[in-house]
Amino acid sequence: MDEAAFRHALAALRADRRHGASELARQALALLAASCQSLAALDDDRLRTELERRCCLLAGCRPSMAVVANLLQLWRQRLYQPAAAAGKLADGLAAQAQAVAAASLAASQAAARHMARRLRPGQCLITHSASSTLRLLFAELAPARLRLIVSESRPLNEGVGLAAELLRLGHEVRLITDAQLGLFVAEADLALVGADSLLVDGSIVNKAGTRLLALAARADGVPFYCCCEGFKVTAQTRADLAREQMDPAELGHDCLPLTAQRNLYFDCTEASLVSAWVTEAGVSARPPAPLTGC
Amino acid sequence: MDEAAFRHALAALRADRRHGASELARQALALLAASCQSLAALDDDRLRTELERRCCLLAGCRPSMAVVANLLQLWRQRLYQPAAAAGKLADGLAAQAQAVAAASLAASQAAARHMARRLRPGQCLITHSASSTLRLLFAELAPARLRLIVSESRPLNEGVGLAAELLRLGHEVRLITDAQLGLFVAEADLALVGADSLLVDGSIVNKAGTRLLALAARADGVPFYCCCEGFKVTAQTRADLAREQMDPAELGHDCLPLTAQRNLYFDCTEASLVSAWVTEAGVSARPPAPLTGC
Repeated sequence: MDEAAFRHALAALRADRRHGASELARQALALLAASCQSLAALDDDRLRTELERRCCLLAGCRPSMAVVANLLQLWRQRLYQPAAAAGKLADGLAAQAQAVAAASLAASQAAARHMARRLRPGQCLITHSASSTLRLLFAELAPARLRLIVSESRPLNEGVGLAAELLRLGHEVRLITDAQLGLFVAEADLALVGADSLLVDGSIVNKAGTRLLALAARADGVPFYCCCEGFKVTAQTRADLAREQMDPAELGHDCLPLTAQRNLYFDCTEASLVSAWVTEAGVSARPPAPLTGC
Repeated sequence: MDEAAFRHALAALRADRRHGASELARQALALLAASCQSLAALDDDRLRTELERRCCLLAGCRPSMAVVANLLQLWRQRLYQPAAAAGKLADGLAAQAQAVAAASLAASQAAARHMARRLRPGQCLITHSASSTLRLLFAELAPARLRLIVSESRPLNEGVGLAAELLRLGHEVRLITDAQLGLFVAEADLALVGADSLLVDGSIVNKAGTRLLALAARADGVPFYCCCEGFKVTAQTRADLAREQMDPAELGHDCLPLTAQRNLYFDCTEASLVSAWVTEAGVSARPPAPLTGC
């Protein structure tokens, strides 16, 4: 993976609207593993310097997704450990990138299993956006045939793809516009979302619209759960949050000047609206603590 | 207007997604006026019977829009009054239909003027859907150059047309997805919507998404106003509400079976979320009373 290929992959990661935060974080680690292998001919000092530079670029590319920076920071802590054997530093760092990605996937799977144990067949869930952790959950629960209400999640409508996947799994599905969240939430036993980041106070950074679902759930007495890997917790507060603004052309309204359109991707749901946080550590009414060292 | 033409016009009214409740109510009155003229050759008894039948069909065609039934009921009360002169019943009833429509328009204009007096140049307003009463208000306030945040209002995006109109009037406009309402409401001095109906307790029946805006406004301490003609007040309660379900094909997701999609047009915003109701009677912190006889 030479510099041009790396830059190209970095730009693709920055522009990716299809994959969730966990998936993008694991892709970033895969880019580092590939970089280790292609830079293996460098001496150890130059290898570390070059990898650190790439790691920093990757860590900053999706500021609303704490899991990207967190997992890269976990890997970076190993960068200056001595190599197991002479000339083996690159191999060792590549293996560690793969190990961190595997730990992230295992954490998401464990969170999904904890959540699954809280659900009963035939229960009605409402969700917004399309979290990869919830996809693991819904796949595991396919024989239970849940009743799922899914919002389309404008502008890119990832909820439509999720609804199609859930239908294939055999669940009962109702796809609604985001605007109907306040109409349908009262029919649900539980509102359930993933997260792009969890702030230190338990607030949830997630696709715009999540906060509206949480407000409606609170108004209608429906519990609101957030399920994701603990690697998403950040020491950031709401004041630190970058507001990721995507291309307004994604809204698809060519008749209006783009300067008069806004496309903020993520909103922040206050912790007071969250009934429980579900991570690999289990289901808790208290927000998970940030990872040490991240 | 023979029976076939009337049936055709009735079907168009039922399917109309472009015009607001007030405009459709006035169109229904125009259909009655045209019916009066085309049925004028009937004797008075048969004329009344036929007009009453058409009036009932029109009154039931948009159950979420109380103003349609209310204005038609006002006209219907005059149906059995004696004609001013022999053979003049049809002319008199046509004129009365036009007078009721004019009263409705005048009420909307008066409500818009009361609201306008509450606003100052440069204030920031957030709105959802595209109310004809608010259009009157925004046109009147064009020299004041408001800052307006408008949601697209899926599925048919009437907010996009409103945003274009507001830009032409010289206001500063930001068009957002419905999902971003919870992000942008905190920037507004006031949230402002029209209504399709006002229930007797002050709850607002309006385009789906209105309730989410009201919940977010309450959470962020932004006043939430509803501005419309008093002819929209109905004695109905939330339990009486018909849930108008439109064609799910309007969502535009051909990849999913239509049976798995929902397209409910109206939600109901609880009166406790409303800061003030603005009608031709003025601005009030108490909901307007229903019209007597409606």
